[in-house]
Amino acid sequence: MTPNLHLLNHCRIVLCQTSHPGNIGSTARAMKTMGFQNLYLVQPKIFPSPESNSLASGATDILEKATVCHTLEEALAGCTFVIGLSARRRQLSHALLPIREVAGRLPELLQAHTESPQNIAFVFGTEMSGLSNAELDLCQMVAMIPANPEYASLNLAAAVQIVCYELRMALLDQKDPLRDLPKSQISPQPDKTIHYASIDDIELMYEHLEQTLYSIGFLKAKEPGRIMQRLRRMFARSRLEKEEVNILRGIFKLMQSPRSNPID
Amino acid sequence: MTPNLHLLNHCRIVLCQTSHPGNIGSTARAMKTMGFQNLYLVQPKIFPSPESNSLASGATDILEKATVCHTLEEALAGCTFVIGLSARRRQLSHALLPIREVAGRLPELLQAHTESPQNIAFVFGTEMSGLSNAELDLCQMVAMIPANPEYASLNLAAAVQIVCYELRMALLDQKDPLRDLPKSQISPQPDKTIHYASIDDIELMYEHLEQTLYSIGFLKAKEPGRIMQRLRRMFARSRLEKEEVNILRGIFKLMQSPRSNPID
Repeated sequence: MTPNLHLLNHCRIVLCQTSHPGNIGSTARAMKTMGFQNLYLVQPKIFPSPESNSLASGATDILEKATVCHTLEEALAGCTFVIGLSARRRQLSHALLPIREVAGRLPELLQAHTESPQNIAFVFGTEMSGLSNAELDLCQMVAMIPANPEYASLNLAAAVQIVCYELRMALLDQKDPLRDLPKSQISPQPDKTIHYASIDDIELMYEHLEQTLYSIGFLKAKEPGRIMQRLRRMFARSRLEKEEVNILRGIFKLMQSPRSNPID
Repeated sequence: MTPNLHLLNHCRIVLCQTSHPGNIGSTARAMKTMGFQNLYLVQPKIFPSPESNSLASGATDILEKATVCHTLEEALAGCTFVIGLSARRRQLSHALLPIREVAGRLPELLQAHTESPQNIAFVFGTEMSGLSNAELDLCQMVAMIPANPEYASLNLAAAVQIVCYELRMALLDQKDPLRDLPKSQISPQPDKTIHYASIDDIELMYEHLEQTLYSIGFLKAKEPGRIMQRLRRMFARSRLEKEEVNILRGIFKLMQSPRSNPID
């Protein structure tokens, strides 16, 4: 695990007065896929519910340990920084920062390099009207997701998904985002299992190709130089592997003396 | 509108054999919030449906103009680049690139600086098992979302939301380093004259290749599926141009009925 990813445990996702229980379930699933655990629910309309559990899929553990609160203040207890999510400009509001920019400040906000990292919260308003002004007053920063101005209506859980994704990406080792994937999720490292063909093998293959194209009558009628140049360019772009050169040469060999009759 | 955002109209979101109509509706909403329009559905289990419409919320227009197809090939007609989304490693698979890295290449893949941008597709598999190997064979690149290795099960529409968000961000972020240079200082765009082959042309070329390899006796003795998959991967890496496909098909034609005798 990237050393920093445990810091996601210091982030809370806070949903205020959520109307649809399905959104609470989908939020739990979105959080867990990105490695988040701490869900706080301020006056959810319906919770718990079978619909939440169903949409949480394999993330019902997040729902089971969710903290239900009467007020937003209660949900923020112990946090030292609070970021509200908003899609709209507010009068007298804080500046609206894109979530990617906020995520870039995450290590600093969490005090990632200290012995006692800080707890921070990301607060989401209702499905219909977002965060109230009173709720925004509790936030030190307001973040937004740069959406289509003609239709910016992200589903609540979809917004949580993007926020959690951005935060995870910010803590992942920037140089190697695949490092935390289990081996089974990673394709073979290109240099480890791929055996590239050497230039000399490739040149021999081109010679064989040219000779073959003459023998089937393809190069006679055309401009041999130009055709060979195009074919070289085409193969060059794909950075041939040894086994591929072997397959090609096997084909060229049979092109010169096929084992069966042509089918047309 | 950022000048480049209209290029999102050259991107398709393709869902293969989706089981739950709700996911189709949520996908439409996710797409529209990020400025995407073109939804292709390959053999959806249920479509159209009241559930899709309900979850699409204000994005029912995307559903109304969605293209329903029988095969993935049909959904990819006219595209010159295809990116599959996958969470798992596959045998003989392409390398798995994080979606942010793929998004970073978006302007190049779309040929954003040319007069005729290319159409490209992002392909999503079923909720249960993702893309099949046959579907992955149609992709030139495979992208993944770096998720929690202990629970990487993103909802389908949530995955579409992240992909569309990343693509939008990539076009928003894009700086044009050539913008302030005088015209005389700018080299002609190397890609301006390149005409990429469409996926349908490429598929016809593969069919022709397979038929030809049978006719010369190459595929009889070997494992046809594995050989064809390797050849597809090899060609996929080089992003074929129209003229190259024509050259290849000209060669295949003569392989089946050579104009002169083999020289050895």
